[in-house]
Amino acid sequence: MALHDCDVAVVGGGVAGCTAGMYASRYGLDTLIFGGGLPGGQAALAVRIENYPGFPDGVSGMELAQAVRTQAERMGAELVTAQAMGLSRADDGRWILFSDVGEARAVAVIVATGGRPRKLGIPGEEEFAGAGVSYCATCDGFFFRGEAVAVIGGGNTAIEDALFLSEVCSTVYVVHRRDALRAESYLQERAFARDNIEFVWDSVPVEVVGREQVERVRVRNVKTQADRDLEVKGVFVAIGYEAQTEWLGDYVEREGGFILTNDRMETKSPGLFAAGDVRLTPVRQITTAVGDATVAAYFAYDYLAGFRNR
Amino acid sequence: MALHDCDVAVVGGGVAGCTAGMYASRYGLDTLIFGGGLPGGQAALAVRIENYPGFPDGVSGMELAQAVRTQAERMGAELVTAQAMGLSRADDGRWILFSDVGEARAVAVIVATGGRPRKLGIPGEEEFAGAGVSYCATCDGFFFRGEAVAVIGGGNTAIEDALFLSEVCSTVYVVHRRDALRAESYLQERAFARDNIEFVWDSVPVEVVGREQVERVRVRNVKTQADRDLEVKGVFVAIGYEAQTEWLGDYVEREGGFILTNDRMETKSPGLFAAGDVRLTPVRQITTAVGDATVAAYFAYDYLAGFRNR
Repeated sequence: MALHDCDVAVVGGGVAGCTAGMYASRYGLDTLIFGGGLPGGQAALAVRIENYPGFPDGVSGMELAQAVRTQAERMGAELVTAQAMGLSRADDGRWILFSDVGEARAVAVIVATGGRPRKLGIPGEEEFAGAGVSYCATCDGFFFRGEAVAVIGGGNTAIEDALFLSEVCSTVYVVHRRDALRAESYLQERAFARDNIEFVWDSVPVEVVGREQVERVRVRNVKTQADRDLEVKGVFVAIGYEAQTEWLGDYVEREGGFILTNDRMETKSPGLFAAGDVRLTPVRQITTAVGDATVAAYFAYDYLAGFRNR
Repeated sequence: MALHDCDVAVVGGGVAGCTAGMYASRYGLDTLIFGGGLPGGQAALAVRIENYPGFPDGVSGMELAQAVRTQAERMGAELVTAQAMGLSRADDGRWILFSDVGEARAVAVIVATGGRPRKLGIPGEEEFAGAGVSYCATCDGFFFRGEAVAVIGGGNTAIEDALFLSEVCSTVYVVHRRDALRAESYLQERAFARDNIEFVWDSVPVEVVGREQVERVRVRNVKTQADRDLEVKGVFVAIGYEAQTEWLGDYVEREGGFILTNDRMETKSPGLFAAGDVRLTPVRQITTAVGDATVAAYFAYDYLAGFRNR
């Protein structure tokens, strides 16, 4: 499908974006989904999703992402392979979306671009990205079968990654800057019960070292300042997400890059909505993404009705 | 399972309740779900749900409700067949839930009791309930195969009901008090295209008439005050939902029976949360119910952590 002017432009082709697109289409709106970047968003990267209601046996992230995409298209939304890069308000009040493949006008815009893994910002990280440094255990774990690896972080993602990797790798070091995990207790219990997961508490990575591939990661104990080298072939970074929202300029308010909305998913600019992980919210789950997206589409529809009757 | 004291009591066994129970269990909380009333809640009544992300071919409401229930139980939540009837705060700050099968204490309570269909409040309605008057087209429609029926209402549910009934019944009258529908445009288009759906605009039902079964419904044009008798065997009432929250006394604020919360799903009473259709919210979908439930479970978990560390 090609870019064209529309009622609603949804930016982001993940679960939030496709759900918003599905609902907007159900409301009879001409809807374009800008599906730049990874198809399916973050959800698509999950090997097995156990906490999305409706799938008691779990569902693969790719399967779920594809299903929601299909559903959006069946309801009439059009997916375009375009990366939104800028936004501006036209004289008639509509939005102009600039992308790598051209521009399109839309009365309402729903931003559902999600988040991306946060970087460590240490020497060797960029150099060895794809050569031992990974941000997706479920994508890259199998390359480290039988090897020792390190997971950096102490939240749900880090522990889920460690559990997954412990089934594939010989040893999994979990490097966490505190002396207790943030992960949900059921995950902690499972991780503590694994013989080949070793916790490296109060420690932060300071350098990734190797020649062509990662050979070890140097970690520093934040209490004793003592360094320790972990002999690993892989370093899995799981220290949270960040959102890429610079392209929205001054049209939104942000905190740490995440977009502020009210409970109608409205940003500070009329006709501009945000939904899912890109939003400043304490809970980032698929459930909350689909909830957000539904609300955003509803109020985009509402905004459209007002816009047409001006 | 029997009633017992727990960390979190979820009241309501529908999609919102079971999702809240699932998440609370994943957070390692001892969780009891009071599943009184209809198993599966309102969702279970839907023949085919097309707008829940992940099911491009649709899913039956009963199937989805059962799946979410199974999922909650697998995560460790316990479902008890109990109808919550009252709430009180114990001296130690915990909640006491009174039910038809006894009482149980819980640190946090999540109310997810949903809504129920609104009644017309006209003569004959109660008399013929189950004898021609129905609040669920998808449950009772097949009893009226080849007959004429009336649907009262102009929203999504009314039009979805009319579309469903038009495939089974000879004629479907849609009686709406205005001269335009509130339903989503794609539903309107589908309904207007059906030969055997007749719209009775600007009209309200004033009496359901019959002997042992419904024989007709009398409707009054609100502009001309003229009455008209529609010869129907069934009257399907689809004029919205209401929530039954009286049992919560002064522990919550309400508007039209629906519970007011903030965006953490907190009511005015610490440790008391609400999620799903029972909440005052502009959008009542399964997507928003599972989103609400996830947020409520998260902040219930947060509340528990604070409660334990007092």
